[in-house]
Amino acid sequence: MEKEVVRITDGVPGTFKDTVAEEAFLTLYLNDKELLTLMCSPDNLKELSAGFLYSSGLIHSADDIEHISVNVSKMTSRITTRKKDLSDDAIFKRIYTSGCGKNMLFYNTLDVAGGKIVTNKIQIQSSQITELVKAFEAKSATYKETGGVHSAAFCSESEIIAFHEDIGRHNAIDKVVGEALFSNMNMENLMVLTSGRISSEVMYKIQKMGCAVIVSRSAPTSLAVKLAEKWNITLVGFVRGRRMNVYTAVERIGVAPRAKV
Amino acid sequence: MEKEVVRITDGVPGTFKDTVAEEAFLTLYLNDKELLTLMCSPDNLKELSAGFLYSSGLIHSADDIEHISVNVSKMTSRITTRKKDLSDDAIFKRIYTSGCGKNMLFYNTLDVAGGKIVTNKIQIQSSQITELVKAFEAKSATYKETGGVHSAAFCSESEIIAFHEDIGRHNAIDKVVGEALFSNMNMENLMVLTSGRISSEVMYKIQKMGCAVIVSRSAPTSLAVKLAEKWNITLVGFVRGRRMNVYTAVERIGVAPRAKV
Repeated sequence: MEKEVVRITDGVPGTFKDTVAEEAFLTLYLNDKELLTLMCSPDNLKELSAGFLYSSGLIHSADDIEHISVNVSKMTSRITTRKKDLSDDAIFKRIYTSGCGKNMLFYNTLDVAGGKIVTNKIQIQSSQITELVKAFEAKSATYKETGGVHSAAFCSESEIIAFHEDIGRHNAIDKVVGEALFSNMNMENLMVLTSGRISSEVMYKIQKMGCAVIVSRSAPTSLAVKLAEKWNITLVGFVRGRRMNVYTAVERIGVAPRAKV
Repeated sequence: MEKEVVRITDGVPGTFKDTVAEEAFLTLYLNDKELLTLMCSPDNLKELSAGFLYSSGLIHSADDIEHISVNVSKMTSRITTRKKDLSDDAIFKRIYTSGCGKNMLFYNTLDVAGGKIVTNKIQIQSSQITELVKAFEAKSATYKETGGVHSAAFCSESEIIAFHEDIGRHNAIDKVVGEALFSNMNMENLMVLTSGRISSEVMYKIQKMGCAVIVSRSAPTSLAVKLAEKWNITLVGFVRGRRMNVYTAVERIGVAPRAKV
């Protein structure tokens, strides 16, 4: 959105045209029943819808989707699944709560199920992480313009494969998940980059995807670190230039051979 | 949480003890019925509970609360209200959805009700905003240590009156609202400072409090700007040193008299 803004510098006002990050409401219908409304950046809504369903545990692959249609003017997304018994009340209640930042759903999962331990032995050099984060930051076009969005990406050890932005850090991740689903990527061999903080909710998503490595330039929370430990996921935070903190499963990160003394 | 972390600098690993921001689950019970679970930083839980109920429109003052008790080891907060008919299913459904980042509740409000226009004529100098944001940033102790939390504050034109931190930017605002409720502050004459982005959800909270000015060092979204315009709330973003952007209701912001030419 273009907006005339008063910029005050040292007490002196001036007007200029600012670009403000778009925010919109997308209402999801699952098998003809209203599921929930997401606040999001209004782009890649098909990917967002599918990624959200996947992250919430309602679908497990693109094949589970029979049909998906997005109406951009009404801001609705209608998804029908092959297995129609998804849309019973129990599922709907679960999704409502899981939409609350995934907390209730996750809360139960943490206590009850426990999730799958990641055994993937992929290796990545710390220097490659530095390069990937540099490329990731260079890609963040909307952020540069508006300062108001998060980004997320899937990448191999050498390049970014899927990249999306959204005003919500969860939506940005769901959009890359949606793209991965539609292009049949094997998420288990990809790493996730995010501009946002890593909370337990983010770890929950990562675990669902089966990813072994998550990288952020921001901080993790205590629960995220505990879950990464439990699930054997490599959590890398505070990537700033050639420096980074590896919180868990450090064996996946290769380092330069030490100089001989 | 203290955590032994591998810090890699230029490919060379070393270990150090890092302080990671705490994340915990707080389950709210309203009139003996489970309401929802919030992911939060485990401090000032009484304020968080009361502030959350206020922001969600379930209570309108501290007087509406009959009793509130927080159990820190079980991480539960039990609130009974004077009017017991709050806890019917309709309300519970509303809260579930409003817990989802307040979107469904808000979505309806935006379409149906419309909110109250703020007529408060308070004035603040841009130089005072600069000073307040400086003090606000200096106060952010947990952020400095962990890099993982948001802060929020209520302030007068000259000083910070209530200040809280949380891993969630909404929770940080709810905690200051809770403190304001318990100490009978008149929120209508206070400004809100936040470290986070200003989305429509944040504007919805601000409007409920009756505040006239919200200030952030981050960006607003398009919907936040539209709502600020509609409700005549002064929205100041990107406060960086002595520079700031005033998006709406600029008449509340005083500027230095222009130097004569």
